[in-house]
Amino acid sequence: MFLKTAPIGYTSIDYYSGRYSVGQNNSPIGFLFEPRNVAVVGASRTPGKIGNVILSNLKKLGYKGSIYPVNPGMQEVLDMPVYPSVDAIPGDVELAVIALPAHLVLDVVRDCARKRVGGLVIISSGFSDVGGEGVWRQQELLEIARSAGMRVIGPNTTGLLNPYAPFTTTFDTIKGEVRAGSIAFISQTGMFAGLMLQHIITAERFGLSKVAGLGNKADVADHEVLDYLEHDEATKAIMLYVEGVKDGRKFLEAARRVSRTKPIAVLKVGSTEAGARAALSHTGSITGDDRVFDAVCRQAGMVRAGNFNELVDFAKMFAYQPVSQGSRIAIVTISMGAGALAADMCYQGGLEIPELNPATIRRIKENSPGWAVVRNPVDTEPIAEKMGQPEGYRIALEAVLADGNVDMCLVVIGTMLTDEHDISFMERLKKEHPEKPLAVYVIGDDNIYRRHFQVLEGYGIPVFSALDRAINGLLALHRYRRLNADRK
Amino acid sequence: MFLKTAPIGYTSIDYYSGRYSVGQNNSPIGFLFEPRNVAVVGASRTPGKIGNVILSNLKKLGYKGSIYPVNPGMQEVLDMPVYPSVDAIPGDVELAVIALPAHLVLDVVRDCARKRVGGLVIISSGFSDVGGEGVWRQQELLEIARSAGMRVIGPNTTGLLNPYAPFTTTFDTIKGEVRAGSIAFISQTGMFAGLMLQHIITAERFGLSKVAGLGNKADVADHEVLDYLEHDEATKAIMLYVEGVKDGRKFLEAARRVSRTKPIAVLKVGSTEAGARAALSHTGSITGDDRVFDAVCRQAGMVRAGNFNELVDFAKMFAYQPVSQGSRIAIVTISMGAGALAADMCYQGGLEIPELNPATIRRIKENSPGWAVVRNPVDTEPIAEKMGQPEGYRIALEAVLADGNVDMCLVVIGTMLTDEHDISFMERLKKEHPEKPLAVYVIGDDNIYRRHFQVLEGYGIPVFSALDRAINGLLALHRYRRLNADRK
Repeated sequence: MFLKTAPIGYTSIDYYSGRYSVGQNNSPIGFLFEPRNVAVVGASRTPGKIGNVILSNLKKLGYKGSIYPVNPGMQEVLDMPVYPSVDAIPGDVELAVIALPAHLVLDVVRDCARKRVGGLVIISSGFSDVGGEGVWRQQELLEIARSAGMRVIGPNTTGLLNPYAPFTTTFDTIKGEVRAGSIAFISQTGMFAGLMLQHIITAERFGLSKVAGLGNKADVADHEVLDYLEHDEATKAIMLYVEGVKDGRKFLEAARRVSRTKPIAVLKVGSTEAGARAALSHTGSITGDDRVFDAVCRQAGMVRAGNFNELVDFAKMFAYQPVSQGSRIAIVTISMGAGALAADMCYQGGLEIPELNPATIRRIKENSPGWAVVRNPVDTEPIAEKMGQPEGYRIALEAVLADGNVDMCLVVIGTMLTDEHDISFMERLKKEHPEKPLAVYVIGDDNIYRRHFQVLEGYGIPVFSALDRAINGLLALHRYRRLNADRK
Repeated sequence: MFLKTAPIGYTSIDYYSGRYSVGQNNSPIGFLFEPRNVAVVGASRTPGKIGNVILSNLKKLGYKGSIYPVNPGMQEVLDMPVYPSVDAIPGDVELAVIALPAHLVLDVVRDCARKRVGGLVIISSGFSDVGGEGVWRQQELLEIARSAGMRVIGPNTTGLLNPYAPFTTTFDTIKGEVRAGSIAFISQTGMFAGLMLQHIITAERFGLSKVAGLGNKADVADHEVLDYLEHDEATKAIMLYVEGVKDGRKFLEAARRVSRTKPIAVLKVGSTEAGARAALSHTGSITGDDRVFDAVCRQAGMVRAGNFNELVDFAKMFAYQPVSQGSRIAIVTISMGAGALAADMCYQGGLEIPELNPATIRRIKENSPGWAVVRNPVDTEPIAEKMGQPEGYRIALEAVLADGNVDMCLVVIGTMLTDEHDISFMERLKKEHPEKPLAVYVIGDDNIYRRHFQVLEGYGIPVFSALDRAINGLLALHRYRRLNADRK
């Protein structure tokens, strides 16, 4: 409870030291992302069960606060003492995670209210998501929580992850290392959030700042999380997956304000009746008219994604790159087939493929055989014929990045460049041109792609395994810039 | 030369035995895919150089014919004797691969004409691809070849790969195992063909039947390769990447005829002016009006792909699955978020998401908790709550595949199924319903995805790492069926 009465604007940095320094973030839900202690109601000794996984995730992540497993039927779990009820926990409880069948939840919520718990993450499904009596159950839950001043995440969710605290309520076993980074992920659905989180952790290299699975959004909804993230220093950009929006006006206001400084990409289900029906039976969400939502995105300056990969491509670009200064792209490529395809896709997405400056062309021609025709897209093959393979890329890339006609650059690297050393020049180029976004598509051998991915993303250069995804990333920057150009 | 005068319709099976049995394939270019011997002009001892890689690829692949390296400046390469010229090779030469700078090519082509070589694969660029004198050089090359009766692949290409012979002229180092399979790949551009081939070999599990990189298409163009593939027993479906079509009428005729029995997907560059310009400077191709090409695709019953991944998704589906009997799809999913997104995408692609039969719903309900709502998409989570995790999938999938309202099925598997044993029931289901195409999207941990990918594709079930790609695959079947429904 104390956090809700703590001086406005504590920062996470000082949080565990106990000093409430005055920081920027005075969000009323901030404490949920970094609770000083957590009760897990429905603790289980069975590996794989939700009430067991949540506990082992907390330990694996290295959560530094107190963990209070609650279950009347056992004494000890994972070397921790188990409490028979929330009441039995000594001292204040800041956050309770409830992982019980739906019909047992309300009694525990009443216990929590008596105990003056600060907030609840309700994992259980069986509320508005199932309709009928579930709707009434959710209503009652909300009334109890509100009258006790408890904030609620869920029900029907995986809840929260904060790699900085570190803290999580995720019930899907965390296997990889959760890298702390700059991308926040707000997701309506627990399973989707949990599994997509696993995907990002294991398949991507960029780190996350906060994850919030909101489930049925009985209490805390997107707009409040956006408000919180606006002042979260760790968060640079936000991925949003929604089925239905709870309070359209508040959502639009928050998104419009937050996206000014922190780019937001949004994936929304229910753009067809088929998807809308499925969403309704899932989180009880009314997805609404898709054209209305499209208009909301435009007004709020949010980039709309068509599928989950587009969300990830957006996140990856914003994790590493600045917003571009303009829409003129240079393409540097080992394969002119890929170059021509890229030109088509960039142009269709609204980018310009400008003529290069005479100085740029001269610089490349000096290092090419006489027959070479130099234009944008730039073919690295002729340069490589004269200067060798890595040199072909270096010369072309140096030239186009120095070109005043170029705002951003796509590089298509072939896996005949097998060695880490072959691509190390890109670290310097990225530093020399921090204002010009760069995306790399590695074409060819999948194993070499994986190595280059690690090396280049280590330099802060986003790497993609498919041409369309690299272009998605660059287009995300462009779309954000265009949507927000007149708002700055 | 002998092959061109061999009895019409030899088959590859009897080829190496020397018996020309009368088979189905009487294509005049068939011998290029399985030459009895091959000269490599421009042989090199430097690892990584094209003239070295071609030779080592042939050895690595286990080519059984005679290899004649040609270079006047050396005696031996990779333990093979080197000939100073094509003339100096004893006996007939069936195919010569020419990997020399452009200005040296014509003299060698004249040598080959004198030697009465059967066919040429010309790797070298610097012909119509560079314009100017290159155009005349290509014209002269063609005249020499035609008057000597030599067929030409290229110039400006990686040429051919036939994993069955096995034979290749590819100059990109082949690293993985080249699996012989049922998908043919015709690509205009050498670099693209070569690198994409590497990608398919290393990232995918389905096998290839033939690869043809056609480059500038001075002589052999797409329509002749399509004619050849029509009667190639190994080929079940065809991926096509084109920049420009050489003879539109012949191309349309061949594609229209071949696609009746062998589905064709086509990716064409130059749908915008930006891409068209790039293609022109690349293979000297006039890409033409994109709307005209779109009409050609429809008339020819070809599925048009928007990017390379869509070609691969098409290939993967046709490698494993039959054309669907109808357009009604069932979605079985661990995540209703993914289910709702899938419903949107399927519907937008023209599929129906039908109501399930009462018997199907009853069967699933019997194995679910009382509160469960059963409809399409089918949520496996409630079933798993009652019956355990792999059982949830098995029960749902068995029920929907037996449903007469369902023509195809998308399965979304979460990586909480960690074990090979968890998914082994799918092998039986695939056998019991061979007529109902199945695609699997594995959501979550990337490492578990990789294992499931190997296991399930081993059962002949295509597996995708992204939802949109799984749906691309299913839509490819649907689009092929719809385009060709009235032509059978």
